[in-house]
Amino acid sequence: MTSHISEPRPITSYRAGVVSAAADTIVKETPLTIYVNREEFATMVCSPEHLREMVVGFLASEGIILVYSDILRLELDEESGFAYVHLYKKPNLSFSGHSKRFIGSCCGKSRQFYFHNDMKMAKTARTSAQLSPSRCASLMQAMQEDSEAFHQTGGVHNAALCSTDELLLSRMDIGRHNALDKLYGHCLMHHWSVRDKVLVFSGRLSSEVLTKAAKIGVGIVLSKSAPTSLAIDLADDLNITAVGFVRGDKLNVYTHCERIFEEGVHS
Amino acid sequence: MTSHISEPRPITSYRAGVVSAAADTIVKETPLTIYVNREEFATMVCSPEHLREMVVGFLASEGIILVYSDILRLELDEESGFAYVHLYKKPNLSFSGHSKRFIGSCCGKSRQFYFHNDMKMAKTARTSAQLSPSRCASLMQAMQEDSEAFHQTGGVHNAALCSTDELLLSRMDIGRHNALDKLYGHCLMHHWSVRDKVLVFSGRLSSEVLTKAAKIGVGIVLSKSAPTSLAIDLADDLNITAVGFVRGDKLNVYTHCERIFEEGVHS
Repeated sequence: MTSHISEPRPITSYRAGVVSAAADTIVKETPLTIYVNREEFATMVCSPEHLREMVVGFLASEGIILVYSDILRLELDEESGFAYVHLYKKPNLSFSGHSKRFIGSCCGKSRQFYFHNDMKMAKTARTSAQLSPSRCASLMQAMQEDSEAFHQTGGVHNAALCSTDELLLSRMDIGRHNALDKLYGHCLMHHWSVRDKVLVFSGRLSSEVLTKAAKIGVGIVLSKSAPTSLAIDLADDLNITAVGFVRGDKLNVYTHCERIFEEGVHS
Repeated sequence: MTSHISEPRPITSYRAGVVSAAADTIVKETPLTIYVNREEFATMVCSPEHLREMVVGFLASEGIILVYSDILRLELDEESGFAYVHLYKKPNLSFSGHSKRFIGSCCGKSRQFYFHNDMKMAKTARTSAQLSPSRCASLMQAMQEDSEAFHQTGGVHNAALCSTDELLLSRMDIGRHNALDKLYGHCLMHHWSVRDKVLVFSGRLSSEVLTKAAKIGVGIVLSKSAPTSLAIDLADDLNITAVGFVRGDKLNVYTHCERIFEEGVHS
């Protein structure tokens, strides 16, 4: 079945010694090259849906825009894979802030890693949200049920924004950061307040994912998988509650555990 | 247990309503900033082992060096996360080839995506290697047995180079491309011929992984997971046999299936 994010392809299948020609549902991966005020800015490789949200979220994440209304016009040529963004102001498109390492002398160890650009855009969380472990599990379950594509193709990352009560929006992409940019773009385009929302993610919590969560502005991040050491350092530093291995009635809290709260038995 | 790639961290554990303080083994993620001839070139975030191989493989993959002997000196400061590379020749460190999209007018559709730099470095496979489906399964199993870290921490990608008979070298990293760069660097440093080797990979076959495989120079790629549409297009174009979902006695061949061969029952 062809959809925005997958399409059938012919394969040769081996099953216990039996060879057959078959078809498999393959997740699409397409390039999108973004021009900002007629200058080539970046090429992303992504799942071709919700591209407008992705471009908006990516530009905000990179510090090119602060609010959606910074964009005068956004034209998408989905067929050829181009996005043409026109801003009211002339942006600073220098890539130096993106690739240059920020070496802090006075900050904590984890801050040492931030790129200059991340340093500027990542916010320290100011959330009053709290979650019970069972609510963590139900939000994770809601995200998984909402992401049928994963079961069809086995190849996408899923991310969702939730209130402390329910799933509000989920996005998927072959690129982990793209799924997060799509959420971020949606929030900017629809003026959502993110401060007390929860980010639910299917994959590993790397430093990149944590940095992106801090840019979006959430205070709690739930993952089905493991965090890295640097992600833990960043979460600690940015006042974000990082929860991993949310599976059934089990989970691990790695940082700021005061927000995961239940009157349970303390051993 | 602290190792090169993981370390213990305190966590708050919830198990069926029971809260306890515990320790978890966390995979390390550290930055490495590479200077080439005193100029800052790139910062990678990686698992801190086999860094010399990674730097060599990355520089070759980016077209900065062609052979290991292009490097006069490579100094690693692992503590602070810096690599200082001195080349015999003055390299062209322009990033334009890395980020600029290559738009072909005469080539096939898949070629349209290559970045300029990838276009230059990716080789069309010229292998005579062939594998039976059962050998695919045994190579995948060998890689998994060799990668205990995954079971400890749930957060790394594993990659291995194999002959058609056995596993020769495996590397792991939190970054999928880093694991491949480590393999590539090892081959360059030890003058391995790669043409008839097989690349075995734990994760999804994205366009990035396929491009890297073509740069390393292998002709067969095995994955435990799914390929993307663009990876299939690239594999087809680059004469690479892409095999996915290698699990037990099952597998799918997506391109150039003539290299996966067994006298089986054809349906």
